[in-house]
Amino acid sequence: MKKEKNNKPSKELPLGFVDRQEKELLVRDFIISNIKEVMIKYGFQYLETPSFEYSESIGKFLPDKDRPDEGVFSFQDENKWLSLRYDLTAPLARYVAKNYLEIPKPFKRYQLGTVWRNEKPGPGRFREFLQFDADFVGTKNIYADAELCILISNILEKCGLEKKDFIIKISNRKLGIGLLEWLNIKSSEQKLKIFRSIDKLDRLGEEEVVKLLGKGRKDKSGDFTEGAGLDNDQISKIQQFFLLTDSLKSKKIEEQINDPKNQNEFLKTTQANSSTFAEGINELFQIRNILNEYEFTNYEFDTTLIRGLEYYTGPIFEVVLKFKVKNSKGNEIEFGSIGGGGRYDNLIENFGNLDCPATGISVGIDRLVYALMQRKKFKLNQSKPVVICTFDKNEIVNYIKLQKVLRAAGVNSEIYPGESKLKKQMEYANKIKSPAVILYGENEIKSGKPTLRNLSSGEEKSIEIKELVNEIKKII
Amino acid sequence: MKKEKNNKPSKELPLGFVDRQEKELLVRDFIISNIKEVMIKYGFQYLETPSFEYSESIGKFLPDKDRPDEGVFSFQDENKWLSLRYDLTAPLARYVAKNYLEIPKPFKRYQLGTVWRNEKPGPGRFREFLQFDADFVGTKNIYADAELCILISNILEKCGLEKKDFIIKISNRKLGIGLLEWLNIKSSEQKLKIFRSIDKLDRLGEEEVVKLLGKGRKDKSGDFTEGAGLDNDQISKIQQFFLLTDSLKSKKIEEQINDPKNQNEFLKTTQANSSTFAEGINELFQIRNILNEYEFTNYEFDTTLIRGLEYYTGPIFEVVLKFKVKNSKGNEIEFGSIGGGGRYDNLIENFGNLDCPATGISVGIDRLVYALMQRKKFKLNQSKPVVICTFDKNEIVNYIKLQKVLRAAGVNSEIYPGESKLKKQMEYANKIKSPAVILYGENEIKSGKPTLRNLSSGEEKSIEIKELVNEIKKII
Repeated sequence: MKKEKNNKPSKELPLGFVDRQEKELLVRDFIISNIKEVMIKYGFQYLETPSFEYSESIGKFLPDKDRPDEGVFSFQDENKWLSLRYDLTAPLARYVAKNYLEIPKPFKRYQLGTVWRNEKPGPGRFREFLQFDADFVGTKNIYADAELCILISNILEKCGLEKKDFIIKISNRKLGIGLLEWLNIKSSEQKLKIFRSIDKLDRLGEEEVVKLLGKGRKDKSGDFTEGAGLDNDQISKIQQFFLLTDSLKSKKIEEQINDPKNQNEFLKTTQANSSTFAEGINELFQIRNILNEYEFTNYEFDTTLIRGLEYYTGPIFEVVLKFKVKNSKGNEIEFGSIGGGGRYDNLIENFGNLDCPATGISVGIDRLVYALMQRKKFKLNQSKPVVICTFDKNEIVNYIKLQKVLRAAGVNSEIYPGESKLKKQMEYANKIKSPAVILYGENEIKSGKPTLRNLSSGEEKSIEIKELVNEIKKII
Repeated sequence: MKKEKNNKPSKELPLGFVDRQEKELLVRDFIISNIKEVMIKYGFQYLETPSFEYSESIGKFLPDKDRPDEGVFSFQDENKWLSLRYDLTAPLARYVAKNYLEIPKPFKRYQLGTVWRNEKPGPGRFREFLQFDADFVGTKNIYADAELCILISNILEKCGLEKKDFIIKISNRKLGIGLLEWLNIKSSEQKLKIFRSIDKLDRLGEEEVVKLLGKGRKDKSGDFTEGAGLDNDQISKIQQFFLLTDSLKSKKIEEQINDPKNQNEFLKTTQANSSTFAEGINELFQIRNILNEYEFTNYEFDTTLIRGLEYYTGPIFEVVLKFKVKNSKGNEIEFGSIGGGGRYDNLIENFGNLDCPATGISVGIDRLVYALMQRKKFKLNQSKPVVICTFDKNEIVNYIKLQKVLRAAGVNSEIYPGESKLKKQMEYANKIKSPAVILYGENEIKSGKPTLRNLSSGEEKSIEIKELVNEIKKII
């Protein structure tokens, strides 16, 4: 380790890491307590895996094959490699494999934990996140997938968001797989390019996505992105796939499926040709039925929803905040995704012959904290201490006398902990946003009546000690 | 990163890391919520620094000079080194230096966070801990040191410990420094050896410590530890130092100090020769006076208390749990220390010309969790979900109907999330310690009366849906 003698150490943080202040932490605590409450209500078990795992235990399941190993923080430890977890799903898979005989089946667990990404540092790109994950392990039941949508909505509403503030977007990986079958795409590189292009429909619009699916696209800056190289026929099939979202949204899809004069060529052909696709649609119907029964309407089907992780096998979802926030340039933008998830029926069996179909959801808590803090309506107050000012070291006994009265009454309070003049003490009290200070100098001690100064109004009052608590309670 | 193709990844955790189960996490949450409550009451600010810091920012303050840099997990990042924090004090020093102009003075902050030690792995030696730290920064006032003792006791009592269960041991680094001055010890290696030997007085007894102070000591296994190499005169002075604890405990020390016929040679000589020593004694008196005013008696002075960290400059303390627990060999032992702290007036100025005297306390939360879980008296119950068993996929609508009734009434509940036969469902319900299951099969649906089975008594009851919640509330 490099140490420069005689030089002062850096006061700065490495890029991608931040200090978090009280206001943010209180909002976070509020979110976490809501999460825990909902998790108990829904019968999930609380689990915590450690920050480190053997790299091999999580390395084989890097979410995207195109993300290099460098995406994680790793150390060589004796003759094996350790990595800081980059998500909570890979460690869950390891945990289930390790404890397969002991866990209930199905196993419903939730976890709150930091994850690390060793990305190239850059402004606004964080390398440490707090995540919340809830998963059902060991069940194929689509009820589990639907339940995840309901429970995350329940959490968001408890956090003070209204129904109009967010939506759960739902799709099914099987539709995408059906599409690829129909297009007869085999190369996984091309598959990835197609999925990535489709994923950009919301942001770029259909015209630009068509370019990405074909030869490529030049963006405003002049940068050229190479396309997926599909021909016009293939691209037109994908455009029909886009129409599927509207059919699903308008809920006319059953009619279209059952009507032989159905105008959606894609639906007709794919239904006939791909059992995977048919399963995918069928699972969406099942989810819809369950959500209907719960009178849950805060979702929409969106077949252009892709989600990056390669391991998804069935229903996928994304949690989108719909309210507007100002970005760093001062423009109003929709807040966007704070998380999502989906079914990953084949992930855990990598550890052995374990038949462990599973589905889960993951939410980025830091993004949710940020979103809630952007809402002007949202306020969390914490009662700051009343400050007992000090005048003379030798009178500490008298200050303690007051402090004991306040503590016994449950009033947050402190004796000024430094050794400064009154002016500095007042600066301190204002800085910590104290509601009031108590002045108990020589004269006040003689008369037995401390002075209470309200720091928001500036008003001062001479008060009997036995009345002090009542007067303070009027202020705080 | 090494990847063995065709081999299954490890299901095991690296040594020194553990999975934590619900029971333990609930106890931990309970402790954390008590900590937060007390911190608000005492007017501490909530802060969180990130897990990584530049190695140079924390590396210069490795707690023990004899601990190698290998004690931390470090990565090279572009041209600088990053390290996972090994405590919460070094990052606090960096935070204060970075934000010196903005923070209130004094600055009272608390933090809860994981710290990492890259120790050589071994059984029972953890490499990741949750720590709680509370610090006063920017004050020389001894009131702050006393307050730390009171607040940690307040937290422990809130956690359910009684006064007899723990004690705060208090000493002052200045006494040790005074001792070294009296012994005329200059070599820092010898200083460390002397402090380490004194630290073992509780465990080994005076006779063995005398050996360690002299030529060395052979332990029961035959291993020889080289001694500090002091001569008999020096050792006898240290033995007089040991007597100081009794003088302090019996509170006769003022008499001894003021009485010229004082029999404690050490006290007499050192008082006269070392102003550092006199200051140390004086600070202990001040702390005692403050604690007396608060009627706080749950402490004892113990001058053999050393604490490893080299950066301490004044009062030091240790939080000791006094109740007996069984160790891994089945022997009853006193639980021992769960943390401690002290004054470190010179640490922060390493970052620049900042005059930042400070004092703080640190508690190992994992050890405290373990201690509370060892107490039979201690119980935290969490209401586990009632399980609605499923008989027929097509009846999901009916199960949901029941689930809605239970959720509306705030009863923790779940529809069995798998697709198994009733026997497996009952195994599941028992495994998760569910209080009851609801059976709603064909006949029950027809009659509109589900069956409620109490899983602790085995009793079954056929119940109208509208009575279901009342009946469940009798059970849970």
